[in-house]
Amino acid sequence: MPEKDAAAPEGAQATPEGDAAAKAATEAGKAAEEAAAAAAPPPKQMKCVVLTGFGGIKMIKVQQKPEPKLAEGEVLIRAKACGMSFPDLMLRQGVIDNVPKPPLVMGFECAGLVEALGENTTGFNVGDRVIALSDYKAWAELVAVPATSVYKLPENVSWEDGACLLMNYVTAYILLFDLANLRKGQSILLHSAGGGVGQAILQLCSTVEDVTVFGTASAHKHESIKDRVTHLLDHNVDYVQEIRKVSSDGVDIVLDCLCGEDTNRGISVLKPMGKYLLYGSSNIVTGETKSFFSFAKSLHMPDNIVWWQVDKVNPIKLFDDNKSVGGFQLRRLMFRQGQHAYVRAVVDKIMDMYRHGKIRPVIDSIWAFEDVGEGMQKLHDRKNIGKILLDPSKEPAPKPEKSAEKEQAEGGENGGTEKSEPAVNGE
Amino acid sequence: MPEKDAAAPEGAQATPEGDAAAKAATEAGKAAEEAAAAAAPPPKQMKCVVLTGFGGIKMIKVQQKPEPKLAEGEVLIRAKACGMSFPDLMLRQGVIDNVPKPPLVMGFECAGLVEALGENTTGFNVGDRVIALSDYKAWAELVAVPATSVYKLPENVSWEDGACLLMNYVTAYILLFDLANLRKGQSILLHSAGGGVGQAILQLCSTVEDVTVFGTASAHKHESIKDRVTHLLDHNVDYVQEIRKVSSDGVDIVLDCLCGEDTNRGISVLKPMGKYLLYGSSNIVTGETKSFFSFAKSLHMPDNIVWWQVDKVNPIKLFDDNKSVGGFQLRRLMFRQGQHAYVRAVVDKIMDMYRHGKIRPVIDSIWAFEDVGEGMQKLHDRKNIGKILLDPSKEPAPKPEKSAEKEQAEGGENGGTEKSEPAVNGE
Repeated sequence: MPEKDAAAPEGAQATPEGDAAAKAATEAGKAAEEAAAAAAPPPKQMKCVVLTGFGGIKMIKVQQKPEPKLAEGEVLIRAKACGMSFPDLMLRQGVIDNVPKPPLVMGFECAGLVEALGENTTGFNVGDRVIALSDYKAWAELVAVPATSVYKLPENVSWEDGACLLMNYVTAYILLFDLANLRKGQSILLHSAGGGVGQAILQLCSTVEDVTVFGTASAHKHESIKDRVTHLLDHNVDYVQEIRKVSSDGVDIVLDCLCGEDTNRGISVLKPMGKYLLYGSSNIVTGETKSFFSFAKSLHMPDNIVWWQVDKVNPIKLFDDNKSVGGFQLRRLMFRQGQHAYVRAVVDKIMDMYRHGKIRPVIDSIWAFEDVGEGMQKLHDRKNIGKILLDPSKEPAPKPEKSAEKEQAEGGENGGTEKSEPAVNGE
Repeated sequence: MPEKDAAAPEGAQATPEGDAAAKAATEAGKAAEEAAAAAAPPPKQMKCVVLTGFGGIKMIKVQQKPEPKLAEGEVLIRAKACGMSFPDLMLRQGVIDNVPKPPLVMGFECAGLVEALGENTTGFNVGDRVIALSDYKAWAELVAVPATSVYKLPENVSWEDGACLLMNYVTAYILLFDLANLRKGQSILLHSAGGGVGQAILQLCSTVEDVTVFGTASAHKHESIKDRVTHLLDHNVDYVQEIRKVSSDGVDIVLDCLCGEDTNRGISVLKPMGKYLLYGSSNIVTGETKSFFSFAKSLHMPDNIVWWQVDKVNPIKLFDDNKSVGGFQLRRLMFRQGQHAYVRAVVDKIMDMYRHGKIRPVIDSIWAFEDVGEGMQKLHDRKNIGKILLDPSKEPAPKPEKSAEKEQAEGGENGGTEKSEPAVNGE
């Protein structure tokens, strides 16, 4: 505190007079400090979406928090649109890997403008349009992200489209082209074909000739995806049997975001040379908001991995059957395994496909931070067709006169702006 | 027996006279039969390599057998060169999957001339130069193979090169390009880098930019492969530790023909996004010729799969680690799973790479059928550098004056023609 030191004269002695002088100086210092504090602007606040503890939607609060301080190598982004995906739901319930300790700011991806740069941050300028993957903290007006997971967004891509391109399309691209190595004439079983990653996978599949897609989705999503799915199946049918009716030896590729018993069924329905890839475990998010938190917790092993129901695989059996089994998780790849250069190369390819009109994000709805619970309930109920976004500048939807609890119980669909532009929803 | 019927006059009665007449006729018939047999060409015989029972090299005999009869859709090939690979060794010891019942003619691949076509066989003409994958029976002067696993061999490809292209290069191609999806800048751990498949994999790796190969091989093979292997390691070192010294996070791809404990180590040394592929189990062929047969038999489960030492893998762990594990076995893909069209497309690509000089088989030695035991011993002892071939028309090497048993015990290296043409061995 330099002001206080300056107020105490140098060399003041510890005499009775000196004591009185020192006391006077201390009083003066306090007054000066208070004056300085009053004169300095208060620490700036920003609005953000905070998870206050694991559980139901009521654990999420919109709060004012101090603006993030930039660390070396970081980019400060003023968010214009934030993406929501299944891991957000799993985080809320505490069934995500490497469970962090709440309270925390939620959110894994956003699009926005570069507002400031940390020390030694290269590759970006203030004012750049960017999209970013963030290890939490992306659902805020301002987001500080290491430059390693920030990517430039071309002028002609909207904030909304930009906020859809990372979690879903990077996952879809890596699954199809790097891991499954999709080729002409092959067949795929895709679960949750109407969801965010599902829609991205369907679009990427259509860039390859003669691909047969067996897609499972809730019946109410069938209309929206029927043009891109060769054989549409309801989630609840015995899809292995349905596939074998069409293709007795099974499919070349299984992309599974469900896990559990579906993992065993997925591996069983593979053709010779077939590849099964697990990229999510949304089966554990199926119960009621209040009860499945404790249910899911009980499934956890000490290392935070859910092992339930999935049969272990012997590599010699894979050798014997000519099959492959693998898994993919983008957040872990980025934030635990640090594969930034690899992901950046994939983002470049996705931008290129966007530029050439090969992919076009499907947006389900856009919500104000204050209405995040409703957007999330829609995702939980599998009612979304395409991506759910948050817009930090959006005004919350006016609420009808009823208690918040009742509203939540109804999983309200009001409040979000349902996108209706044909260019987007027509996909 | 029409000759006999014709020799017994029609309507001959069973009277005493008739009996005598019948007897005379029978005698006459026998004489006629013998004469006919003498006049008709005897059923044609061919030389082939027969496994008389599972065990050591002495269970293999060169025998004369009737020429194969062509079934519908088959091609009869006069073999000019036959390929030997590790599955032949495993078959001899009875440690192969779907163990057949000896005696049987050995051999999984050959190159030769089309001698005849079965009924309704299309796509080939008598006189065509071909190579073939065969479900056993390929080590013979004449080989009958379904047209589905016969491929045309261009004029400019020698019989010897042709006999190297299927088991090794098809396996190498599928592993690297269809399953591991090898890309620029990636790293590979390859076991038995100096063997037949190993050499093929090394050549295919060099068609991709900037690939780092960690190759394990016996010390005496290092010289021959050092130009294509970035980091040469002895089979006996702790290769995981050696790899981590160079690349702390491991390798992108592990190609494992050893199995057992090497499977667990291979999966452990994978980078994020890494792929482990099991394509052989040569670790079980390591003991003495006489003792490891019973050893290996004891490892068999009822379904003929060797489960020893290999840890099972949980798909959720793969999801958590961003890893993939798979297996590949060409013979099973062809002869149990019937993926003929797929393999034919791969053979086309290999022929194309050969035509463009991108691959060039490395031939270790060529042996007469009678010297098959010596060639096989060399393979068993990992003394071969490149492919071991058999030539049905080759004269056996003159044997020094000693008992055959003593010779076998010594695993003689004499007898085979060591290839020394620079165009082949210079690889």
